[in-house]
Amino acid sequence: MAGAAVVASPLNTFSATNSEIIGEVEEGILDVTKNIKTKGYAATDESGELSPWEFERRPVGDDDILIDINFASICHSDIHQEKGHWGEQEYPQVPGHEIVGVVAAVGKNVTKFKVGDRVGVGCMVDSCMECSTCKAGEEQFCERGQTKFTYGAPSKAEPTGITQGGYSDKLVVRDHFAVHIPDNISFEEAAPLLCAGITTYSPLMRAQFKVGDKVGVAGIGGLGHLAVRIAVSKGAKVYAFTTSEDKVEDIKSWGVEEVIVVDDEFKNMQAYNKTLDYMISTIPYQFNVAAYVMCLKPGGTFTFVGMPEKSEITLNNLMLAFACVNFNSSLIGGIPETQEVVNYCADNGIKPSIEIINAEEINEAWDKVVNKKARYRYVIDAATF
Amino acid sequence: MAGAAVVASPLNTFSATNSEIIGEVEEGILDVTKNIKTKGYAATDESGELSPWEFERRPVGDDDILIDINFASICHSDIHQEKGHWGEQEYPQVPGHEIVGVVAAVGKNVTKFKVGDRVGVGCMVDSCMECSTCKAGEEQFCERGQTKFTYGAPSKAEPTGITQGGYSDKLVVRDHFAVHIPDNISFEEAAPLLCAGITTYSPLMRAQFKVGDKVGVAGIGGLGHLAVRIAVSKGAKVYAFTTSEDKVEDIKSWGVEEVIVVDDEFKNMQAYNKTLDYMISTIPYQFNVAAYVMCLKPGGTFTFVGMPEKSEITLNNLMLAFACVNFNSSLIGGIPETQEVVNYCADNGIKPSIEIINAEEINEAWDKVVNKKARYRYVIDAATF
Repeated sequence: MAGAAVVASPLNTFSATNSEIIGEVEEGILDVTKNIKTKGYAATDESGELSPWEFERRPVGDDDILIDINFASICHSDIHQEKGHWGEQEYPQVPGHEIVGVVAAVGKNVTKFKVGDRVGVGCMVDSCMECSTCKAGEEQFCERGQTKFTYGAPSKAEPTGITQGGYSDKLVVRDHFAVHIPDNISFEEAAPLLCAGITTYSPLMRAQFKVGDKVGVAGIGGLGHLAVRIAVSKGAKVYAFTTSEDKVEDIKSWGVEEVIVVDDEFKNMQAYNKTLDYMISTIPYQFNVAAYVMCLKPGGTFTFVGMPEKSEITLNNLMLAFACVNFNSSLIGGIPETQEVVNYCADNGIKPSIEIINAEEINEAWDKVVNKKARYRYVIDAATF
Repeated sequence: MAGAAVVASPLNTFSATNSEIIGEVEEGILDVTKNIKTKGYAATDESGELSPWEFERRPVGDDDILIDINFASICHSDIHQEKGHWGEQEYPQVPGHEIVGVVAAVGKNVTKFKVGDRVGVGCMVDSCMECSTCKAGEEQFCERGQTKFTYGAPSKAEPTGITQGGYSDKLVVRDHFAVHIPDNISFEEAAPLLCAGITTYSPLMRAQFKVGDKVGVAGIGGLGHLAVRIAVSKGAKVYAFTTSEDKVEDIKSWGVEEVIVVDDEFKNMQAYNKTLDYMISTIPYQFNVAAYVMCLKPGGTFTFVGMPEKSEITLNNLMLAFACVNFNSSLIGGIPETQEVVNYCADNGIKPSIEIINAEEINEAWDKVVNKKARYRYVIDAATF
């Protein structure tokens, strides 16, 4: 155990390197210089059915931290990716990119974290860290194309050959790609901020709406309910568009200006023609974009953050021209901004609406997400893996 | 001939109203209070095959002018619409929305024009003229939905039940929807400005690029060649993207920075990754938008002015997010801006590259347009209808 510090909680770890280590494992000491045995739930094919799976993660490198995961929440992206909606996948694959826990070991170069820190990991776990985009804190757009997403990305360092996500009990990650979870928010409430939070916060901030501006949010699920909360908190008059009548009271309680229950023919949306300054859609499928875009004032911007099958969205070009609206998409946010949204939500009492489930309930929860029954984020208790 | 002035050229007209009239018709006097006999070329079904057709236009109303057409040029939109690519059409239908000629008669309320004026008509011939959008000179976006396009639009006033376009020898149009053609540009060179010119000029001006900014133009046909000329004239460094190797010398002669002959796999476009400030595409079909969008700097804007079949364009949402690019569409421009582009091009020597054809050559010309053989606009001599 040369150069290793062993602390009693939460894991007993062992290292022959200079890593600071900590830990407790049922069978004894954990050697973080060797592959890390991990328990999780994995998809094994495009059915997307998850089942328990024991696998190994890479050893804790000099720039890495080992996280003892407390919670991971369920994002609709998990479902799309494991079912192959965005392209072929390698299996078994453990999804999950809204991950929170406690630092259990740190590599010798790590200064950002110490053992025992509360941390979170979102949608990416590595990038080149050298290009101007990475240096500017937009690691999701690494100019060298080395952004590595949290699960399913080819990775020679990982014993399984791909990155494996947060539906598991441990995670080894490059320190830069974890953020601090402040003490004024619980782990379980922080988890959804790591993807749903940053994915909505980033474009909302980029939109630079002013206090009192009318901001539309389309699709009030895991992402949408956070978009509403953040936009309200930032002073917008929020117009929430949902197809779920039974979400209306929840949504009203978040301080919106109006809730519009969208009918099949979009008739009740016509009253909002050219009224909104900005709109964000979190709907993760193809939908009638035109009906929503028409609600924007000419010159307004419509941001699409849902990622439908094949990542394709079909627009009516003539409609877009008539509406004089700018259309864009947004993909998560960089690490500095991820830290910013976590801190902002913690400091301003923006707590995701969550339901904690056990690992064995994941498949059922996925069905509910697809069927719009989530209220509004399922958070998996990692102690049950 | 009470209240009527008869002038010897170019038409002999007759009116029992207070219209100022003028004219010469082979068979005698033209009564502008009655339907106006017109000769043109019409499509009769979705084959899009055009054939000679004699039809009637409405009488010259109090706010109307009668135009003795000199030239009408061929826009790719004519082909799309007559072949039903944008939806079902009523036939016979005369296409053409790049129209120039001489005022032959004016209604009693008309002050904008007098008989003998050189005039042009573009893509629209009426709107409500009362809503705030119409009053702001954006008649193409009439809030009451009363924008009436130049051909194929239902119109009770017209004897044929729809508006009929400019592939013909005469046109009756509400005065507001015609623009003045200055003396320092020929009729035949002015014609393409009425659609191709305004359609590219309007978004280019809206983009507010600065002198020295890098502007991409994708698709160098009727619209694209004018986009190039206008952008160069306004001080942009223009990067022209074409699939036609044999257009390179022409394009260079217009003062561009570079011509990129796009290969099937878009490989040579990779050198332009994130280099352009703004890009306009005039390609009138679905295409690999991603390959072009990637040429823009993050935060840049991509404007799509081509109108593909069904007006649909499919985007890769993930690509749009990675590129951080705003996507929008643009539809012609209002009447004041149409006058502006005509004046600007006349004053700055921007002359479309044209080839004058006779009416009987229209079908052949359409084939050439579809097969990218136009260099760069076919202009029909209306004397040959």
